[in-house]
Amino acid sequence: MRKISLIGIGAGDPDHLTLQAAKAIGRTDVFFLLDKGELKQSMIDLRERIIRGYSKPTRRMVTGRDPDRDRTPADYQGTVEDWRHRRALVMEEMLVEHLREDETGSFLVWGDPSLYDSSIAILDEVLARGAIEFEYEVIPGISSVSALAAKHRVPLNRVGRPYQVTTGRRLAEGWPAGVDDVVVMLDAQQAFTAHPDVDIFWGAYVGTPDEILRSGRVSEVADEILRTRADAREQHGWIMDTYLLRRPD
Amino acid sequence: MRKISLIGIGAGDPDHLTLQAAKAIGRTDVFFLLDKGELKQSMIDLRERIIRGYSKPTRRMVTGRDPDRDRTPADYQGTVEDWRHRRALVMEEMLVEHLREDETGSFLVWGDPSLYDSSIAILDEVLARGAIEFEYEVIPGISSVSALAAKHRVPLNRVGRPYQVTTGRRLAEGWPAGVDDVVVMLDAQQAFTAHPDVDIFWGAYVGTPDEILRSGRVSEVADEILRTRADAREQHGWIMDTYLLRRPD
Repeated sequence: MRKISLIGIGAGDPDHLTLQAAKAIGRTDVFFLLDKGELKQSMIDLRERIIRGYSKPTRRMVTGRDPDRDRTPADYQGTVEDWRHRRALVMEEMLVEHLREDETGSFLVWGDPSLYDSSIAILDEVLARGAIEFEYEVIPGISSVSALAAKHRVPLNRVGRPYQVTTGRRLAEGWPAGVDDVVVMLDAQQAFTAHPDVDIFWGAYVGTPDEILRSGRVSEVADEILRTRADAREQHGWIMDTYLLRRPD
Repeated sequence: MRKISLIGIGAGDPDHLTLQAAKAIGRTDVFFLLDKGELKQSMIDLRERIIRGYSKPTRRMVTGRDPDRDRTPADYQGTVEDWRHRRALVMEEMLVEHLREDETGSFLVWGDPSLYDSSIAILDEVLARGAIEFEYEVIPGISSVSALAAKHRVPLNRVGRPYQVTTGRRLAEGWPAGVDDVVVMLDAQQAFTAHPDVDIFWGAYVGTPDEILRSGRVSEVADEILRTRADAREQHGWIMDTYLLRRPD
């Protein structure tokens, strides 16, 4: 039976790799890389360094082209679902063509495959289509959320209290009900600026040599974060940032 | 200057250890172990195996006695804060007595230090008291939440939607507002049984040889989970479980 591993490789620091992930890389016959045209060279280099470091000499690499995706759609969920569907077709084609019956294939996932990543849903769709059979396993990774909290040395929750993980798009609709601690991912619009009275723990490129951290009351640090973020984005050509918002007691 | 590392060592599988954690263990002069009397032998063995595997031969081990704590207090937050304060005093005493000026000390933390763990707050309190100076770093780990999701091969969030992490105590007060996906930790009362119409992804001792996983509609699997949980608790003398609840679309 074919085997597939979805391997979380951490948030950008090669030392985020777990022993479990390194061993799974070592068992892999074929690495399947789905590249967005936009994936930055520094991230490609990091991924190659990880593969080179822990894989067997006979492993093969198969690169597919990630389908394009509208980044500012009117119908967000429908657009993402359509993109996932097209992505499943690309994955299926790669697997049928390149993974032999007795082999193990792997997909490397930034951060943790259970957090704002589509790989699990896509593999489930490939399985449901029935054109190819395989077993698969998911290997957890250090998420950008854990990495952010560690670098700021702050817990995500307060004693006995909940926290919520959400998107910039959702935060822009208002502060979530029932929580005082909110982690925000995928925020293209800097929705934190609408909440001047809370504390922010912000980080960009966390875990990489380009890491930037800022924290403080939003009213005092928002301007600096906006400026720093714009500068970094221009300098690197892309940005990956996330933050924790914490209502003071 | 003294250095301290808070090292996340993962949720119970020795292969959850990251390279970053292994390196930090290798730099450590003194391991500080704060044992609750109730810590089970299998967990002590796992921690010792990790230390033995990656530490230098000259490292020392200092074991302190974790202060007792009322597990069913009337004032939950006050009780936890009082316990943290007493814990900080124990930590301070251990550090003052056993960590020399040029040395590195480490505390190993199950899971991820940013998630329902008090070590960061306690070290901040020791620093604030001013009896001893040190720098400290936090090394993220695979949390029981990531491990649970990986084993069930489910994402924590759905496309573009939030999820909340909360406690059994909070869930018993009602389903949280504004979310359809809820991760529950520290649930001594099996609060999921009040939500028969949602899906549950439950796991105990996740990542260890004793791992148990169950999933399904709560109305159909709650009885089995309750029975399995009670049996496992009796067999092992303790239980560590967590679960994801997901409202069907």
